Amino acid sequence: MNTSEVINPDLAKERQNATVKLDEMKSFLGEMIYLNQENYRSAIKYRDVMVKTIKPISDENFYNLERDQKYQMIFKKSLEMFEFVNENKIESVMSLFNIGSVFGLEKILFNLHFTMFRDALNVWGNPEQSAYWQKYLTENAVFGTYVQTELGHGTYLRGLETTATYDKFTQEFIIDSPTLTSIKFWPGGSGKSCNFAIVMAKLIIDGTDHGIHAFVVQLRSLIDHKVVPGIEIGDIGRKFGFDATDNGYLKFDRLRIPRNSMLMQFAEVSPSGQFTRKGNELLMYATMLLMRGNLPLVGAYYLSISSTIAIRYSCVRRQTADSNGVEPQIINYQTQQIRLFPALASAYATLFSALNLREILLSIQKNSDNFKNISPDDLAKLHALSSGLKSLVFSDCLKFAQSNRLCCGGHGYSASSGLSQIIQEADAACTYEGDNVVLLLQTARYLLKCAQKGISPHLEFNNFNDVKNSNIYKQFSEYLSFFHRLYEELSNEVTGKLFKLVKEDRMAPLDAWNCCSFQLTDIARVYIEIFILNSNLLCVYKNGLIENQRALSDLMELYILYSITDNYSGNFLRMNILKPETLNQFKEKMLDLLPIIRKNAVALVDSFDLLDSNLCSSLGAYDGRAYERLLDFARKSQFNEKEVHEVFHKYLKPFAQRQKLRSKL
Amino acid sequence: MNTSEVINPDLAKERQNATVKLDEMKSFLGEMIYLNQENYRSAIKYRDVMVKTIKPISDENFYNLERDQKYQMIFKKSLEMFEFVNENKIESVMSLFNIGSVFGLEKILFNLHFTMFRDALNVWGNPEQSAYWQKYLTENAVFGTYVQTELGHGTYLRGLETTATYDKFTQEFIIDSPTLTSIKFWPGGSGKSCNFAIVMAKLIIDGTDHGIHAFVVQLRSLIDHKVVPGIEIGDIGRKFGFDATDNGYLKFDRLRIPRNSMLMQFAEVSPSGQFTRKGNELLMYATMLLMRGNLPLVGAYYLSISSTIAIRYSCVRRQTADSNGVEPQIINYQTQQIRLFPALASAYATLFSALNLREILLSIQKNSDNFKNISPDDLAKLHALSSGLKSLVFSDCLKFAQSNRLCCGGHGYSASSGLSQIIQEADAACTYEGDNVVLLLQTARYLLKCAQKGISPHLEFNNFNDVKNSNIYKQFSEYLSFFHRLYEELSNEVTGKLFKLVKEDRMAPLDAWNCCSFQLTDIARVYIEIFILNSNLLCVYKNGLIENQRALSDLMELYILYSITDNYSGNFLRMNILKPETLNQFKEKMLDLLPIIRKNAVALVDSFDLLDSNLCSSLGAYDGRAYERLLDFARKSQFNEKEVHEVFHKYLKPFAQRQKLRSKL
Repeated sequence: MNTSEVINPDLAKERQNATVKLDEMKSFLGEMIYLNQENYRSAIKYRDVMVKTIKPISDENFYNLERDQKYQMIFKKSLEMFEFVNENKIESVMSLFNIGSVFGLEKILFNLHFTMFRDALNVWGNPEQSAYWQKYLTENAVFGTYVQTELGHGTYLRGLETTATYDKFTQEFIIDSPTLTSIKFWPGGSGKSCNFAIVMAKLIIDGTDHGIHAFVVQLRSLIDHKVVPGIEIGDIGRKFGFDATDNGYLKFDRLRIPRNSMLMQFAEVSPSGQFTRKGNELLMYATMLLMRGNLPLVGAYYLSISSTIAIRYSCVRRQTADSNGVEPQIINYQTQQIRLFPALASAYATLFSALNLREILLSIQKNSDNFKNISPDDLAKLHALSSGLKSLVFSDCLKFAQSNRLCCGGHGYSASSGLSQIIQEADAACTYEGDNVVLLLQTARYLLKCAQKGISPHLEFNNFNDVKNSNIYKQFSEYLSFFHRLYEELSNEVTGKLFKLVKEDRMAPLDAWNCCSFQLTDIARVYIEIFILNSNLLCVYKNGLIENQRALSDLMELYILYSITDNYSGNFLRMNILKPETLNQFKEKMLDLLPIIRKNAVALVDSFDLLDSNLCSSLGAYDGRAYERLLDFARKSQFNEKEVHEVFHKYLKPFAQRQKLRSKL
Repeated sequence: MNTSEVINPDLAKERQNATVKLDEMKSFLGEMIYLNQENYRSAIKYRDVMVKTIKPISDENFYNLERDQKYQMIFKKSLEMFEFVNENKIESVMSLFNIGSVFGLEKILFNLHFTMFRDALNVWGNPEQSAYWQKYLTENAVFGTYVQTELGHGTYLRGLETTATYDKFTQEFIIDSPTLTSIKFWPGGSGKSCNFAIVMAKLIIDGTDHGIHAFVVQLRSLIDHKVVPGIEIGDIGRKFGFDATDNGYLKFDRLRIPRNSMLMQFAEVSPSGQFTRKGNELLMYATMLLMRGNLPLVGAYYLSISSTIAIRYSCVRRQTADSNGVEPQIINYQTQQIRLFPALASAYATLFSALNLREILLSIQKNSDNFKNISPDDLAKLHALSSGLKSLVFSDCLKFAQSNRLCCGGHGYSASSGLSQIIQEADAACTYEGDNVVLLLQTARYLLKCAQKGISPHLEFNNFNDVKNSNIYKQFSEYLSFFHRLYEELSNEVTGKLFKLVKEDRMAPLDAWNCCSFQLTDIARVYIEIFILNSNLLCVYKNGLIENQRALSDLMELYILYSITDNYSGNFLRMNILKPETLNQFKEKMLDLLPIIRKNAVALVDSFDLLDSNLCSSLGAYDGRAYERLLDFARKSQFNEKEVHEVFHKYLKPFAQRQKLRSKL
């Protein structure tokens, strides 16, 4: 389509009327995302080169493609991306935000290779093993995946059934899938793409079960990509989303692999079959922590995209006449604002808390010699925090992805809007890397332990003292205190109930825990909400530019008022923390904030600095020319390649003839 | 796969432990769905023949197909279905439930033909026109669709831009798309399938705009299906769901159609260009009412399917060991029950209120001589009720479709689960036939008018007096009174605010309305909630079998307690209708109900009497053999047709060679 510089006039007007200083806000966010000014400049520079070197999927009619075409395209571009990153040596300034300028919402095909596979070889392998594999990793000859879940087993690691039985005579492990439920299922990239894998399996020596360990297994030949004998492997078929990913299944039939295939940093099997544990196993978990710690940023990316699309389109779209017969922009409607702006507030809140979590993790990584000296207490706290935040972020991300899609009406349902893919990605993220509910319960378990020990679980940030003396803090301290009280009350309520069930009713502890689990998820939520509020206070405080700080603090206030009146209202009243009148006032205050935020809504999404190629959206592009893009997308439908679809000759014509005959009988 | 009769033992046990009498519950529901015992028997009989005559899509690897394959399959089976229904003369006993035994969640391709197109010809056409078209309809030569929405215009009918300009010299209308935004967009089946359409366009005679009218337009040749000159027409490309539907776009370039193409029952254009309105226009809306009135039943169908899948799978799936090392069925977990059972309760509540609405509509249709004598008051009331119910039903349907998918963990994300398609269908239904928020505001508009007139908007059913003397009613009357008070309080609050804004603050009425619109949606919701509760009371009362009535009343109590503590808790407390302590008690009562409902959960989904071919689900099949089906689906992935995917030769191998070269430099 013609991409001339004409901007939709309604959208242009929104930009003119904003008080936010755009360039400054972009820098503010960019420097936080890329850690400093220099990285940020570098990332933006390479982004511009990148989208010229590798054609973004937004220019490839991507959402009209069939699954196989999508897979091939992402496969090809993933390899191009590696070469680009390698040649320019810019791995350190890569983020979802600039990778997304080529890939939109799609994932690079071998992402498990660069995260789990590579990290596992480095951290779980002993020094010789790490060095050995490093060579192949550098050469990019080996593409690996991480194989854990089975048909019958998910998060519960000890339940895995795949066996690795040591044969001391040949000094090999025999990897086997003894049951239907033990068949490996879901690992990304294993279906067709990868040639290697880390496989988690139960180690058995002389009939003794030594628990779950990691094994490096070759899946396909490096020469011709044929499947190694002893493995049945394939794609698992279509999914809700993830069209371009070949999630796979793997069935092992007594596959033999050499002894050295077991990663032996934390446990060893000697040639004669002697099993020994060694090293600091905590380190194993710390690796996974870093990975989970990065997920909230993924959620922030999705939220920022979906808000950008829905808010821009709501300025362009006009619907239902006012008394003068003029159709207003739909963003004028309160029912639209009350959905769009909490989503926007959540996008910022998520971004700020994700960045804060990352900062905390990086600082601990640095101070603990790459986690080697991390204390069990710190690890437990970080685990609780990152689990809970991952859960809240993606639940919100899904909720708002869904409501943003609904805010865009019929056209939001077109794949070209990009909104449906965000739903599919957010939905998956509520399950992968830990089911959202299970994760909340893990956070709650930590919180109860703190309660038992009589210690506060809440984090005090290094630089929070400065914040506490600021006006921003004063503005929000009362709200914060409400949430602290809510946490205390809910925590007391559920610990009291637990105590009663166990001590008075003599219930088994696990059963009592189960009877309280719904309420336990609540305290985890409130705990994380407090972390989110603190993170936001910190970031709003950091933004020294008065206009921009004001816009962010308005948004934060909306976030809080929406939380209080929507999600938590019943609990606040039930616990007598808020009076009915106060809640009524808060509700009115929230509604009054909407037109204020509306003034900067477009500027606030523009500040995310997402390219049209990040958005991949007919509705959300910078120029607001939604209808041109929808029509363009329609014309490029694969169904339109022929004027008359073959169904006419195959089915409709013979049917009509039969019917004619029948009517003449 | 081998479909022997082995039932998963966990599922078999659930069935044994149930107190619900299954056959009786099936009949009870079946007779309500098909209006009487005779129809029900007949429907079930034909269903069994049908699935033997037309191969259900569940046996066709449907969820692994690409879009074009799906489209072709549904096209073919839709025609087979017409022939089956015609030959057996069973149109009157067809419902979504038995059509779904072949089509699962898919729609018959020409559903707009049988609803909007056919009804519009009959009701909007004058007697001669109806008779004329009847002939072609009977012959099944013409397949029509209904063309209303445009790129720039949705629900707001008067905003449509497509013009039908009368040329009195040739006695033709000239149909034209004068702007980008006037291009017709979305009509189902227009992209490739249909050869005729009802097109809504603005009638212009001698430069005078006479408003929107309906025109019959031929789109494609009956001989060779080629597009009629003067129209650009095509598929609009991929969407979130609806793969098998060819939603289309249509651009008219001064297309000439004969004068008689305008449907002239309610307005006429004489050969000389004289325009006259005539007849009772209300009738036009009554037709659309019947159509919208049927939508809640669609929601009930989706909800029943998603609950059946999620509940059965939750009995089969085991996860995370208890203290004895045994992994419990996940349905044992409270956090699972608190999501699954409100969804189940909502499925029943939706079914009962959908059936009740249909009964009311049918009775009014009967008593008003097919709506000819319907009073404007009745029409307004039915419009408010059917709009609001449609909105609530699909919002709940989407919410629970989503939470049922999450309840099924990773495997729920496989397309084979069937859960993702329910999300896609429910999501669309929140927008089509009226945006859910817009519809709530229409209900609210009616409610405010009632308030102004000082009349109660609530329906009293014909047979409600019997109910009122029953024990069931006594059990629930207090709950009901809470909702009535909530309605009163919220209604007073918002009318007070409106009054203040208009009278004191001198705001323009439309602006004041907009400032209250968020709260207005709330009163509409509570109003509809009361209708749902009454409908449920009625149906629970009707079920005379003690065990089954008990199971239904438990479920209804859960529905109410969940509504009170989840959706409405803040409002109940804020309005001082419930005290904090009462809410605490309700919350505990709700949690206590969960294990009671669990006893009958499987029996209650079995009662929906859905065949495996309705469910189209690897996870939800009657025998509970989820893992076999998942593996079977995986093996049938189109990606597995070749051992080595072509990406290896095209991309990976050349890449590896380049990398090797590079590392040697």
